[in-house]
Amino acid sequence: MFESAEIGHAIDKDDYEAAIPALREALLEAQFELQQQARFPVIVLINGIEGAGKGETVKLLNEWMDPRLIQVSTFDQQTDEELAHPPAWRYWRQLPPKGRMGIFFGNWYSQMIQGRVDGHFKDAVLDQAIIGAENLERMLCDEGALIFKFWFHLSKKQMKARLKNLKDDPERSWRLSPLDWEQTETYDRFVRFGERVLHRTSRDYAPWYVVEGADENYRNLTVAKILLEGLQTALTTQNAEKRHPHAGPASVSIDNRSLLGSLDLSQRLDKESYQKQLASEQARLAGLVRDKRFRKHSLVTVFEGNDAAGKGGAIRRVAAALDPRQYRIVPIAAPTEEERAQPYLWRFWRHIPARGKFTVFDRSWYGRVLVERVEGFCTPADWLRAYGEINDFEEQLSRAGVVVVKFWLSIDSETQLARFQEREEIAFKRFKITEEDWRNREKWPQYADAVEDMVDRTSTQLAPWTLVEANDKRFARVKVLRTINDALERALNRD
Amino acid sequence: MFESAEIGHAIDKDDYEAAIPALREALLEAQFELQQQARFPVIVLINGIEGAGKGETVKLLNEWMDPRLIQVSTFDQQTDEELAHPPAWRYWRQLPPKGRMGIFFGNWYSQMIQGRVDGHFKDAVLDQAIIGAENLERMLCDEGALIFKFWFHLSKKQMKARLKNLKDDPERSWRLSPLDWEQTETYDRFVRFGERVLHRTSRDYAPWYVVEGADENYRNLTVAKILLEGLQTALTTQNAEKRHPHAGPASVSIDNRSLLGSLDLSQRLDKESYQKQLASEQARLAGLVRDKRFRKHSLVTVFEGNDAAGKGGAIRRVAAALDPRQYRIVPIAAPTEEERAQPYLWRFWRHIPARGKFTVFDRSWYGRVLVERVEGFCTPADWLRAYGEINDFEEQLSRAGVVVVKFWLSIDSETQLARFQEREEIAFKRFKITEEDWRNREKWPQYADAVEDMVDRTSTQLAPWTLVEANDKRFARVKVLRTINDALERALNRD
Repeated sequence: MFESAEIGHAIDKDDYEAAIPALREALLEAQFELQQQARFPVIVLINGIEGAGKGETVKLLNEWMDPRLIQVSTFDQQTDEELAHPPAWRYWRQLPPKGRMGIFFGNWYSQMIQGRVDGHFKDAVLDQAIIGAENLERMLCDEGALIFKFWFHLSKKQMKARLKNLKDDPERSWRLSPLDWEQTETYDRFVRFGERVLHRTSRDYAPWYVVEGADENYRNLTVAKILLEGLQTALTTQNAEKRHPHAGPASVSIDNRSLLGSLDLSQRLDKESYQKQLASEQARLAGLVRDKRFRKHSLVTVFEGNDAAGKGGAIRRVAAALDPRQYRIVPIAAPTEEERAQPYLWRFWRHIPARGKFTVFDRSWYGRVLVERVEGFCTPADWLRAYGEINDFEEQLSRAGVVVVKFWLSIDSETQLARFQEREEIAFKRFKITEEDWRNREKWPQYADAVEDMVDRTSTQLAPWTLVEANDKRFARVKVLRTINDALERALNRD
Repeated sequence: MFESAEIGHAIDKDDYEAAIPALREALLEAQFELQQQARFPVIVLINGIEGAGKGETVKLLNEWMDPRLIQVSTFDQQTDEELAHPPAWRYWRQLPPKGRMGIFFGNWYSQMIQGRVDGHFKDAVLDQAIIGAENLERMLCDEGALIFKFWFHLSKKQMKARLKNLKDDPERSWRLSPLDWEQTETYDRFVRFGERVLHRTSRDYAPWYVVEGADENYRNLTVAKILLEGLQTALTTQNAEKRHPHAGPASVSIDNRSLLGSLDLSQRLDKESYQKQLASEQARLAGLVRDKRFRKHSLVTVFEGNDAAGKGGAIRRVAAALDPRQYRIVPIAAPTEEERAQPYLWRFWRHIPARGKFTVFDRSWYGRVLVERVEGFCTPADWLRAYGEINDFEEQLSRAGVVVVKFWLSIDSETQLARFQEREEIAFKRFKITEEDWRNREKWPQYADAVEDMVDRTSTQLAPWTLVEANDKRFARVKVLRTINDALERALNRD
C-alpha cells in the first residue's frame, strides 16, 4: 500500500513558495464557505509513521487556515473521566459540529495499531476494532460528515534519518518512544498491521490518503491540496444521499514523480545471461510445482501491463516450464453473456485453481480499476469500491493457501510505439494490433494514474504487486519467473 | 430479536386457502417479470431453528412458483473439490444469474453459527466470519442482487414439540442432529449466537426477516408475502444506485396478531400490595446502587411508551429511591441548535453516565425509529440504518459495563383516551396535553407498527426491551422497578 510513498517525492523551494499564496486563499475561502453553509462537519484523521511530519503539517494547516474554525484533538492517555466511560465516548465528545473541522491525532486507528504492535492482542481482536471503526465512520458519513484519513509514510531508511533530528521533540508522548522506533522490528510490525488496517478501512466514502513524509514541502502541499479538493467538491455538490464522494487519489500527484516514473527501464540482459538464467528459473519453477508441499497450495499469477509490454511472451516462458495438466491460462477479454449475468468477480472465482494447480490470468479482475475506470464502462462508485472488494477477494485466496503473484509489465511510450509499428509491418504479428490499441495509447496519462492508484491500493503483504521493467523483454521474462519462484519458495518454506 | 416470533402467530385454514390463489398468481407473474427484465438475481438465505419448517416452506415455494427459475442449494459437508478451493468458492459457483432466484440452505450463516455453538471458535473469530458475510453481501447488493434473509424461529417449547414429529425426516443431515437439539443448552447457545449474528448483519439493503415457524399456514404466507413485496418493489423501481431498498418488516403482519396485542393489559395491583412492593423494590434499588460492585458499572434506563402511559410517574418512583447526586434524568424533546449540528447519537452519548452513575432517559435515541419514522422527519434510509447503529451503540455501552434497561410502557387506546380527557379537565394537568398528543393518537396503528419493528430489531441479550403493561399505573411502576433491580443484580453477580 505504501509503494508510491517511498519513491522520494519532493517539491523544490521555489515551486513550493510560488504555490502557497493561492492555496492559502482557496483554503480560507473553502473554510469560510463551510462555516456559512454549516451543512456538514469535516473530520481529519492523522496517522502514520513516527517522524513523518504529522505534527508539523497540522501545525502549518492551522497557520494557513483560520484556526478558530479548526479544533485539534490529541487522544493521549485516557483521562480519569474517559476511563469511567465507554471507549468511544472520548471521540464523540470531540466531534466537530457542522461547519467546523476537527483534526484527530492519536485516534481509533492509532490505538488499535499500537495495541497490536505491542502484542496486547491478536489479529482477531484487531479485526473487531476495525469493524468498530468502520461502523463509526459509515455512520458519521451517513450523517453527512466529510472524512479525510491521512497516513504519513516514510521508508525505514527515511524514518531512521528523520528520527535523528527529532530526538527532543516534546510532542510525541503516548505513542511509541523514538527509542522503540529505532528498532527495525517495530517499524516492520507497524507497517504490517498498518497495512492490514488501511486496506480494510479504505472505503469509497472515507478512503485513506498515503502521503510520503520525507520532504516537508511535498508533504504540506499534498495534504493541503487533498483537503482543498475534497472540501470544494463537497461544498458545491448537493447530494440526495448525505455521503460525500471522494475523488480518486490520482488527482493529487503534484511533483510529477510517480511510481512508474521511478522504474529504471534501461535494465537489460544479454542473450547469453538470459538463456542461462531463464533455463535455471524454469527448472526451479518445475521443481517447486512438483514439490510435495505444493499440494497444500495453489498458485495464481496475474499479468497486467501496457499494450505490447510482452505479457504473452512472458506467460509462454512460464508455461514452458510446466506440465500442461498442472496449469491453465485464462485470457480475459470482454465477458460472456453468462458472465455478464453475474457479479463481476464471478468470472474469476470460477477459474481459481484447486490445491496443487496453477492459473495464469492474462489480464484480470484489475480490469475494473484500469480499462473500466478509464473508459467509463462503470461508475466511479463502482471502481472506487472495487479496491476494497479486490483486497477482500485476494485475502480470501491467500488465507486458503493460494499464492497470489501480480505483475505490471511496464514499458515507456517510445518502446510501445516501436512495437506497434513493428507489429503493423510484420505479417504474422498484424493480428496483434488493432485500432483500439492506438486509441488506448492516446489515454496513456489516464492509464498511468489508474495504475498508480491500483498499486497503491491493492499491493498488500499477502498479494503484492511486482512492477516489471519490460523495455527489455529478456529482463522482464527472467524477473517474472524469478518473482514467481521466490514467492512460491517463501510460501512452501513457511508451512 | 425474536420476541414477536414467539407469540403464537397463526392463520386458520379458510383464510389460508382463500389467500393462496391470488398470491401464487402474483408470485408467478413477478418471477416471469424477473426473468424478462434479467436485471438482477435474487438470493434467498434460509436459516433458523431446527424444526421450524425451513425445508417445508421452501418446498412449497417451489410448488407455487416456477421451479425451473429457482435453484435450491444446500451446503452440506464440503465436497473434495470444495475442500481444495477457498471456502467462499462453493457459494460463488452457486450464485444465481440475473433473472433467477437462488435459495441457499446451510449457507455462510449456518456454518458460522454452528461452529460457534460447537465451540470450534470464540466470538472474535465469529466476528471475523460476520465481516466476511457483510463484505460478500454488500458487494452482491452493490452489484444489483436482491437478498432476502429469513430466520425461521421457534420458542424452546415449540421446538421440542416440533422435533417430536420430525424424528425421521431425512433432510437434516449435516446440521445439528435432532438429538443435539433436544438439549436445552444447544437451543440457548444457538439462539444467543444467532442473535449476535442477526443484529450485526441486518442492514437496510439486506435485512433479516424473523418468521415464527410453529404454524405452517402463517409461516408459508409470511415468507411468500415478503418475497412478493420485495420482488415487486425491486421490479418496478429503477435506481441510480444498484442497491434495492427493502420495505420495513411491519408491512407483513398478516394475522393481526402482534407483540403488543399479546400483552395482558388487565394486570393490576391493589393499593396495599402496591405500597408494600414499591417500598421493597425501592429499598432494593437503593442497596444495589450503593453496592461496591456498582462502581464498576453504570446504569442507563430508557423510557418509551404511548403518550399518557405513565412514564413520568414511573420515573419519579425510580428516582425516589436514590440520592440525587447519583442519577440524572434526561428528558428528550426537540434537539437544541448545538445538537442539530451533530450526528443524531451525539446528544445521547453526552449523557452516558460515568461508572457508578445512573442516567434515566425520558424518551431516547429510539425517537429515530418511532416519531421520526412515523412523522417522516427522516428518510426511510435513515431510520432503516438506525437499527444497526443503535445496536452497535448499545453493544458498546454494554461491553463497557453499562447496564442498559429499556421499557416500552403500553396502554390501550381506551385508557389513553380516558387519561387525555382527565388531563383536559384537571387544571394542574392541563399543561400535559397538547394538540400534538391528539394528532399522534390518530396515528396509533403506524406507531404500533414502528414499536413492533423496534422491539424485533433492537431487543438483544445485552440490552433487551421490557414491555410494561401500563393500564394500571401501580402494576407498571412495580414492574419497572423490579426489572431494573433484576438486571442490576444479574450484572453485579456476574462480575
